[in-house]
Amino acid sequence: MRYPNGIQKEYRSITNYANRGMTLEEDLNVTNEYYRDRNIAIIYKKPTPITIYKVDYPSRKEAVIREARFKIPSTTDYNGIFKGKYIDFEAKETAHKTSFPLSNIHAHQIEHLRKIIQHGGIGFLIVRFTSFQETYLLTGKDFFNFIDQQTRKSIPYSYFKEVGKKIPIGLSPRLDYLKLIEVNYEIKE
Amino acid sequence: MRYPNGIQKEYRSITNYANRGMTLEEDLNVTNEYYRDRNIAIIYKKPTPITIYKVDYPSRKEAVIREARFKIPSTTDYNGIFKGKYIDFEAKETAHKTSFPLSNIHAHQIEHLRKIIQHGGIGFLIVRFTSFQETYLLTGKDFFNFIDQQTRKSIPYSYFKEVGKKIPIGLSPRLDYLKLIEVNYEIKE
Repeated sequence: MRYPNGIQKEYRSITNYANRGMTLEEDLNVTNEYYRDRNIAIIYKKPTPITIYKVDYPSRKEAVIREARFKIPSTTDYNGIFKGKYIDFEAKETAHKTSFPLSNIHAHQIEHLRKIIQHGGIGFLIVRFTSFQETYLLTGKDFFNFIDQQTRKSIPYSYFKEVGKKIPIGLSPRLDYLKLIEVNYEIKE
Repeated sequence: MRYPNGIQKEYRSITNYANRGMTLEEDLNVTNEYYRDRNIAIIYKKPTPITIYKVDYPSRKEAVIREARFKIPSTTDYNGIFKGKYIDFEAKETAHKTSFPLSNIHAHQIEHLRKIIQHGGIGFLIVRFTSFQETYLLTGKDFFNFIDQQTRKSIPYSYFKEVGKKIPIGLSPRLDYLKLIEVNYEIKE
């Protein structure tokens, strides 16, 4: 969506940043849009990876995909830059009340996050427990501390409560996770 | 494609890195795979952005996209991390012999690159002149120096020859653009 500058944009800011968010993905989209509009950070959700098998060209200017399938992603969904640092994270919702099942994240995505951290990037998870409408940021360090020392196939809700950082839902930005990144990581400009 | 570890993987490295590359995109894919396999950098091409209109579910486990359209990308195609630095670039081929038409890059992608550089990332272009089979890296600085001072709708081939950095085609890695990044940017580990 593109809007003209000025009042129209301001209007959009006031109404939409506050009201549009519903799912975690939507909340993150409006938050990242907020960050970009204010030049705080440049972070995007990556497009869903697909394999295209068939494309029709109904006219010279038009291409319509007629057969495609979803691919298992090799990377996390979100990445970008914040204060010169490479940012990379995966965001997931769960309806479970006692734990976050690790089956929600593909093995490749976990290994991707591990590598990002090895290379000096800031990698983390954002997990929403939809039953409680609570959203937590789990730093890469806390995430790997858990999965490297446990054989459990899920991370208990209590671990998020104790070790995770709860992200408050705000008006604008909707889900200010970068504030928690600033507090929990050493970020020098 | 997934391969078992060990000999099989080594075999793949020897054969495919050298022979698979043909288009610039393929050359970059095998190069980035090489960088990832050797833990030099974690850089991926983003999936092509599409809007999905219709999905069929022929079985419980299967989803087939039956109608989708290509979207204009808001960002560049490639990003990732190298020695702790955020890397972001666009790669294009042109069959033109005297210049690289700027119409090959969307305005949003150019503004995206500009912002990445403002935020402390390493942003650049890789352009291949297919008629000469020559591939150039144009640093963000050199790219914006040109487009901010010119009203031309293309960048002359001579500018790439004089100011761009030619990327040699190698056996493995196929297109070692990160070597040029190391030389042309101050990268401290």
